[in-house]
Amino acid sequence: MKTLAAQVITPEDLLKHWQGHRALTRRVIELFPEKDFFEFSIGGMRPFSKLTDELLAIASPALKSIVNRDSQPYTETEKLIFKTQYLEKWDEATAEINQYWEKLTIEDFNETFKLFGQYEFPIIQNIFYFIDNEVHHRGQGYVYLRALGIEPPFFWER
Amino acid sequence: MKTLAAQVITPEDLLKHWQGHRALTRRVIELFPEKDFFEFSIGGMRPFSKLTDELLAIASPALKSIVNRDSQPYTETEKLIFKTQYLEKWDEATAEINQYWEKLTIEDFNETFKLFGQYEFPIIQNIFYFIDNEVHHRGQGYVYLRALGIEPPFFWER
Repeated sequence: MKTLAAQVITPEDLLKHWQGHRALTRRVIELFPEKDFFEFSIGGMRPFSKLTDELLAIASPALKSIVNRDSQPYTETEKLIFKTQYLEKWDEATAEINQYWEKLTIEDFNETFKLFGQYEFPIIQNIFYFIDNEVHHRGQGYVYLRALGIEPPFFWER
Repeated sequence: MKTLAAQVITPEDLLKHWQGHRALTRRVIELFPEKDFFEFSIGGMRPFSKLTDELLAIASPALKSIVNRDSQPYTETEKLIFKTQYLEKWDEATAEINQYWEKLTIEDFNETFKLFGQYEFPIIQNIFYFIDNEVHHRGQGYVYLRALGIEPPFFWER
């Protein structure tokens, strides 16, 4: 079908791209020593556990609200106190994202949605925001790891 | 035209997205004190000038090589010694990217290209890499700024 060539990227490839990034972020979480995950910070910034709280509060819940067209306020999950709990939550979110993604139609991407009841943009821009925000904070996690003397994973390992 | 709805994102919007990120990175460069831009680092990482060398070596030259289907090895630009030179180079690259982008056809995005003679992927993935890599390193720049006691721009300011 010639018309399919008009796509810059297919929904399937965009999901793969996102989940590739999420797999890399998971490896960054894993690399933090337990204590440093909750306590280490630079320049008054949030420790990586708090940055992860934000990422968990966005990805799956935000995609769910998009799929249901049910704008929910931004809320961070219940307080987790062990890194393994974060990794479990991360994996749950991975599966949920795959499920919600299947419910997105190709038309949805260009419709607007008021994310968290606040940010009204085309859904594709919301999704780009989820990815970019994760890459941004993960980049900060790389600095934390380096400052702790820990070598982060290669950026292109997904 | 109904067929256009099959696009997840148009080339025009993807360019706008990329240039929005580039405008934010430019503001981060501007915020660095001259000396710290070249010298400040954390955990043995490159100072932000060196990270910017990398970003400049990728964006415009890489897009040019894609448009010309002329795979060139990765090379960083001549050594710049003032922040204003970086900002000038940045603005030149902004204009060049806009020009090269016009030469990309919709079909190009799904063709493969061996970037820098090494990384053979669909062109859309190459372009996502340019953006993600910039967001990643800029996130690191945010930590440098915070460590220097300087408030970085809001992430959503493009």
